[in-house]
Amino acid sequence: MNYFSSNFKLGILGGGQLGKMLLYTTRKFDIYTTVLDPSTEAPCKIACNEFHQGDLMDFDTVYNFGKNVDVLTFEIEHVNVEALEKLEDEGVKVYPSAKTLRTIQNKGIQKIFYAHHKIPTALFSIYMSLEELTHGIDNDVVTIPFVWKSTQFGYDGTGVKIVRTLDDLHSLPNVECMCEPLIDFKNELAVIVARNVSGEVKTYPVVEMEFHPEANQVEYVICPARISEDIQAKAKKVALQVSEALQHVGILAVEMFQTQDDEILVNEVAPRPHNSGHYSIEASYTDQFEQHIRAILNLPLGNTNSKVAGIMVNLVGAENYTGDVVYENIEKIMQMEGVTPHIYGKKQTRPFRKMGHVTIVNKDVAKARKIAEEVKQTINVISK
Amino acid sequence: MNYFSSNFKLGILGGGQLGKMLLYTTRKFDIYTTVLDPSTEAPCKIACNEFHQGDLMDFDTVYNFGKNVDVLTFEIEHVNVEALEKLEDEGVKVYPSAKTLRTIQNKGIQKIFYAHHKIPTALFSIYMSLEELTHGIDNDVVTIPFVWKSTQFGYDGTGVKIVRTLDDLHSLPNVECMCEPLIDFKNELAVIVARNVSGEVKTYPVVEMEFHPEANQVEYVICPARISEDIQAKAKKVALQVSEALQHVGILAVEMFQTQDDEILVNEVAPRPHNSGHYSIEASYTDQFEQHIRAILNLPLGNTNSKVAGIMVNLVGAENYTGDVVYENIEKIMQMEGVTPHIYGKKQTRPFRKMGHVTIVNKDVAKARKIAEEVKQTINVISK
Repeated sequence: MNYFSSNFKLGILGGGQLGKMLLYTTRKFDIYTTVLDPSTEAPCKIACNEFHQGDLMDFDTVYNFGKNVDVLTFEIEHVNVEALEKLEDEGVKVYPSAKTLRTIQNKGIQKIFYAHHKIPTALFSIYMSLEELTHGIDNDVVTIPFVWKSTQFGYDGTGVKIVRTLDDLHSLPNVECMCEPLIDFKNELAVIVARNVSGEVKTYPVVEMEFHPEANQVEYVICPARISEDIQAKAKKVALQVSEALQHVGILAVEMFQTQDDEILVNEVAPRPHNSGHYSIEASYTDQFEQHIRAILNLPLGNTNSKVAGIMVNLVGAENYTGDVVYENIEKIMQMEGVTPHIYGKKQTRPFRKMGHVTIVNKDVAKARKIAEEVKQTINVISK
Repeated sequence: MNYFSSNFKLGILGGGQLGKMLLYTTRKFDIYTTVLDPSTEAPCKIACNEFHQGDLMDFDTVYNFGKNVDVLTFEIEHVNVEALEKLEDEGVKVYPSAKTLRTIQNKGIQKIFYAHHKIPTALFSIYMSLEELTHGIDNDVVTIPFVWKSTQFGYDGTGVKIVRTLDDLHSLPNVECMCEPLIDFKNELAVIVARNVSGEVKTYPVVEMEFHPEANQVEYVICPARISEDIQAKAKKVALQVSEALQHVGILAVEMFQTQDDEILVNEVAPRPHNSGHYSIEASYTDQFEQHIRAILNLPLGNTNSKVAGIMVNLVGAENYTGDVVYENIEKIMQMEGVTPHIYGKKQTRPFRKMGHVTIVNKDVAKARKIAEEVKQTINVISK
C-alpha cells in the first residue's frame, strides 16, 4: 500500500491536541488526512487535508465520515462504537478495533477484562447507580475510604473521586460506577506498548508519573522512571500482558501502580497516544504519534529507546483565570536548557484546563527534573 | 509581545519544504501564520492559518501581503526586495532584513561583501554577460578550468557549472556571472549560525557535506563533521565572522571549503533554514526551524547541541522517471534503526527534483553513516 503523497486517506475521529500531534507525522509523511470533531475551534482544524465538524457520538455522522476513508483511527475514546462496528463489517479498517474500544470504553468492563485475563489490578465492585452503591456501603460490601469512578465518560480528573466520608457521597452523580480500595502505592508508572497490524510489538521505557493532588491531573511524567531494573521489567511484562490480551493495533498506554510491596497493578489503559508519552516527541528515537501512525498503517515500528532523558510538565489553566489565554513568562522558560513548550491552541483558558505541555530534555534525568520544577514555578497560564 | 494563541501574525514568503518545516514550529507554538506562494500545490498550503497564491517577485503582491502581518520572513531568496524595503520603511518587521537579502541575493555582491569584510573566500571575477566572460578568457583573466556561477537565481544545481573546455561555454546562458578557480578541497563544511533581534548568537556544530557529482546536490550531510577540533573551531570562527558582518536576524547557513592546506574559504551563505540543517529536526536539542522562529520573534535561542549524531540523505527524483511519485521501498528504510523519512508533498517527480529527505540518527556517527548508505541504496523515488 502506498501512503506517501498518494490517494490513500486516513480518518481521525477527534480533533484535540492528540490529533494535532498526530498531524505532525501525517504532514511529515504527506499522508492525506481528514478529521472529525464537534468544535470548529479544534486544535486539528488546520494541518489536516479535510476538516469535518460533527458529533463523535452520533452514529450517522461517524458512519458517513468513516465511509470515505481507507483507515480510521481515533484520538478520543468517546466515539460511537456501533458506527465503527458497521464500518468494519463493510471493510473499512478501524484501528484500534471497535472490539478494543468496547473493552476500554466502560471502566467496569475494562476491569472485568483484566480479571478474566489474570492481569493484576486492584479489587473492584461495580454499581449501576448511586443507590446501589449506597446499599453496598450500608451492607459493608464497600468500605470507606475508597476510590469512586464513573464507568463512562471520565476524562482528566472528571469522573474520579476519593470518598473519605459518607458526606462525600452527596457530591457524586447518580451514574453507573465502580469502587476500588485506596492503593498505598510507591509510584504511579506507565508503559506505552505499540503493536502494528501484523502483530509486531515494541514497548517504550517505563515512565513515572506525579499527579497534582487536587486536580487529579499528571504534573510530571519522568522518563526513565527512577526505579530498579526489576520493577521496570515487571511493569513491562504486565503491560505486554495487557497488550497481548487486547490484541490492539496502535499505541496502548498502560497506567499502573507500584505498591508498597512492589506489586504492579494495572490502573487503566488508553488505546491511543497518551499524555504519559508526550515526552517522546523530544526524547525518543520514534515519538508515540509517529509510532501510532506506523502501527495502524502496518509499517515497521520505530525504535522506542530514548536519545536523552525527558520530563513532561502539563500546562493547565491557573485557578481564578477564565478567558483569553496568556502564557505568562513563556520566554523565561524558553531560556532554560532543553525546554520546549507545546501550545495546543485553545484560545480560552479556565481553571485546570489542559492548555499545553512543556518537555524538558537532558542527558541527566536529575538535572531535567530540577529544570522541570523551575519551569513549573515560572510559567503561568492566565488570562488577559 | 505575546505570540502564543494570540492575534500576532507571522508572514512567510515562500511555501516550499522549508516553509512546511517552519510550520511544525508555528503549529507547536500556535503562532498565527500566513504564507504566500505562487503554487496552489505548495507543500505549505495546509498547516498555515492563511494561504495566499501570488508571485513572490511582484512588488504589489509582496507589499500587500506584508502589510497584513506583524513580522515577515522568507524561506526562499527570490522575492521582491523593493517591497521588503518599503514594508520596513512603513514599520513592518522584516527578518532577515531587506539589506541582508540584497547582500545575499546576487552572488557577485555576496563575494564583494566577503572581500570588503576580509572574510576568506575563493578568488573571483564578475562578468555582466557571456561575451564579457569570453573576452576575459581570451585575455587570460580567467583560465580554464573554472567554476561558472550565474550571479542570480541559481538554486540547487542550476546556475552552477564547471567549465573544463571552451566547448562548455556554449551551454552557458548569456547572463551576469561569476568565475572562481576550482578549489582543491578536502571537505565541504557548513555551519549554521542563529542570531536573534537582540543580537544573541549561537552556532550549530560543523557539518560535513558530500555532493552528488553530477546533480551538484548534497547527498549526505553528516553531523558532527569528522574533522579535527582545530578545523571545527576555525570553521565556526569564519561563520561567526560572516554573521557579525551581515548582522542578520534568523538562521544563517554558511557553506565552506576546507582546502588541502586546511584553509577555510566561504563558498556561499543562505539567510534561512537550509538543507545542511535538516538533520537538526531529529538530532538537535533545538532544530533550525524552531531556532529561526525564535530568532525572528526575538525569543531566547535554544540549545544548538546534538542529542545524537545525525546524517541527512536527500530524496531526489530518480533519472528517467517523471510523473506521479512513488517512494519505492520506503517501508524497508523505515525498518532500519533511527531512520525518519520526510516527504515534502510534491505529487510529481522528475529527475533530480528534491522530493524529501531522510534523517538517520545514532549515538555512533560511523553506524549512522553505514545505515545512511543502506538507505540510499534501498529507497528509490520513481513514478507509477
